[in-house]
Amino acid sequence: MLVLVANLGTTSFKYQLFRMDGQGGAVLAKGGYERVTDYAAVIDDALATLQRDGVITSVDEIEAVGFKTVLGKDLSGCVEADDRVIEALEGFAAVAPAHNPPYANGIRQFRASLPKSRLVALFETAFYQWVPEAASRYAIPRTWHEIGIRRYGFHGASHKFIAERSAELCGREDVAQVARRLYLDGPKDISSAPFRAISCHLGGSSSVTGIRNGIAIGTSMGFSPQSGLPQNNRTGDLDPEAIPYAVKTLGITLDEAQRQLCKESGLLGLSGVSNDIRDVNAAAAAGNADAALALDVLVDSIRHWAGSFLLRMGGVEALTFTGGIGENGAPVRAAVCAGLEEFGLLLDPEKNAACRATETIISREDSRVKVIVIPANEELVLAREVYRKLS
Amino acid sequence: MLVLVANLGTTSFKYQLFRMDGQGGAVLAKGGYERVTDYAAVIDDALATLQRDGVITSVDEIEAVGFKTVLGKDLSGCVEADDRVIEALEGFAAVAPAHNPPYANGIRQFRASLPKSRLVALFETAFYQWVPEAASRYAIPRTWHEIGIRRYGFHGASHKFIAERSAELCGREDVAQVARRLYLDGPKDISSAPFRAISCHLGGSSSVTGIRNGIAIGTSMGFSPQSGLPQNNRTGDLDPEAIPYAVKTLGITLDEAQRQLCKESGLLGLSGVSNDIRDVNAAAAAGNADAALALDVLVDSIRHWAGSFLLRMGGVEALTFTGGIGENGAPVRAAVCAGLEEFGLLLDPEKNAACRATETIISREDSRVKVIVIPANEELVLAREVYRKLS
Repeated sequence: MLVLVANLGTTSFKYQLFRMDGQGGAVLAKGGYERVTDYAAVIDDALATLQRDGVITSVDEIEAVGFKTVLGKDLSGCVEADDRVIEALEGFAAVAPAHNPPYANGIRQFRASLPKSRLVALFETAFYQWVPEAASRYAIPRTWHEIGIRRYGFHGASHKFIAERSAELCGREDVAQVARRLYLDGPKDISSAPFRAISCHLGGSSSVTGIRNGIAIGTSMGFSPQSGLPQNNRTGDLDPEAIPYAVKTLGITLDEAQRQLCKESGLLGLSGVSNDIRDVNAAAAAGNADAALALDVLVDSIRHWAGSFLLRMGGVEALTFTGGIGENGAPVRAAVCAGLEEFGLLLDPEKNAACRATETIISREDSRVKVIVIPANEELVLAREVYRKLS
Repeated sequence: MLVLVANLGTTSFKYQLFRMDGQGGAVLAKGGYERVTDYAAVIDDALATLQRDGVITSVDEIEAVGFKTVLGKDLSGCVEADDRVIEALEGFAAVAPAHNPPYANGIRQFRASLPKSRLVALFETAFYQWVPEAASRYAIPRTWHEIGIRRYGFHGASHKFIAERSAELCGREDVAQVARRLYLDGPKDISSAPFRAISCHLGGSSSVTGIRNGIAIGTSMGFSPQSGLPQNNRTGDLDPEAIPYAVKTLGITLDEAQRQLCKESGLLGLSGVSNDIRDVNAAAAAGNADAALALDVLVDSIRHWAGSFLLRMGGVEALTFTGGIGENGAPVRAAVCAGLEEFGLLLDPEKNAACRATETIISREDSRVKVIVIPANEELVLAREVYRKLS
């Protein structure tokens, strides 16, 4: 089955074409466009390119197109990308202004350009459909809840892949099977010992998810990808009184406050150096105290959320790292794992230091909790879910 | 030493007069006034009443007056209530409008009415002076940090008392001594095994604090008492994007949003029933699903924060409950402690059910982690700190 994964931004369009089968998938072609103003034109150009390059002979060979949609109003899951999806995306355009309008438009455009293909939307919130109600609610007035303010969670495709892969690597095929078929069969109970994983997706955008028996019990991101851990330039968790106080004290508008929390916060705001952790690392190594503090705040926040899931799951069998920082950041991984011996977690410092973006168990042989680096390919993850849904 | 504890609200004044010595303290008299407009008049009336009733013969016998001040700008600790304190309170009047102006005025008034007494301010933030920098910062722009937005923490008097008392009850006199003398000597290292406590102060206003060797490592309340756990009618933790979204979608002003998060949220907002947990409990028992959900959210949030400190401290020796809900809420305590066997915590269901507002170890004999109910008298706690500072 040929599956085209379409990645749509406010001014960009990237794609990868996969050949998928029961064993996995292979990339046949990839490409992209920046500074896009006419989506119809670039999508048609991409399809023409695939034919011109001989990757496909007809667009009809593309059996499915997958969209990693972010957040839908009153809709989640891995679903056919139909009018309901477009409506759900447009209903939350104000919450995800950079992502929802391009995806709504992109789905419309693909429907026109590939009328015979099946379109599938995998919402980034899909993995959190079974989070207990208490962990998905804020203590807000009913009117706020009714306009859709609740903890949705994001990075769902990545964390769900970790749910599958961590179980496989720990010899828990029963749990891996539940995770793999989650969007097809829904959650299933496991009768044997629990398998509990804490998944750290750390990159330009970061989150920590608690996963029990293949199913998420909660995650650090809430209503928006703005909460939870500090992000590259977004703030993460913040006291609700801080915004009105800043608006009044700094004499800025609410829109400007929101912009500053989105664009000038996170690692950039703390370090004053950069929104790229490589620059922050370099500055910290050169003695910049603010840069060192930014890294400390990130680690403390990861530990805060990991601890939350550790207790709420009553223990843990695996702690996993993925994403750019998670895969490459040995110092961050070491700091996250420091002092956790009483929970049965013993990091192997040499394995950790040596591991860069390769799938590796970096805990000691005698560690009860496995610490695992699991690189992720988010496009492939999406293609797999599309293939599973349609086959 | 006679210590008068002055409790000042926007329209109220309450006081208790203690006789303090090295062994503890005793209440000699207490009284209060509501709907106060003229603080000078009620303070002088209180002092006249104490003389008329024969409790004291002269106001000069009142050696000290203690004020449980909430939050000062650039100032914390247990300090002489001088001009610096008044300035610090007035500097954050916008953050604590219900508390700071009355205390600034009250301190001025007591200085006039009791010129020979020593005035002492114990800030609610004092216990958090030694929290690691990384745990007290938000990932915000520098301009936001410079106007004072950081994690201060509150309920410090209560949690510090728990730091002392939990160590005493667990036979850790070395740690208790550090905690008792914290505001006199600053933090001191402990060379023996660590003593780590998670303190749950649960009442109309609630917070969870992690305490390592008598010193706080962090707490659930941040910049304001508005964050952390859901409160009786205040929201607790909330995604920073929720406020601008609610303002735009509901068509309300930022001031109105702030008011709703302060007055119509928390247990009241979730349950739709009441801001009093007794009413919420009754409604839940009668089958009200929203009331049951409100209790579940409270418990989940307590566990979220307790887990954060469990991991960040690398383990725990004591889990304590204080405050109205903590002392009386056996079902909440049981729910918080559920499923924590792997951490060595075994609640004794019968002891828990039987315990109401009496100092009791409610874990099983064979529980490695002690679970303890510790009733607190916040006025006495303040009088003790004042006595320690001046003797």
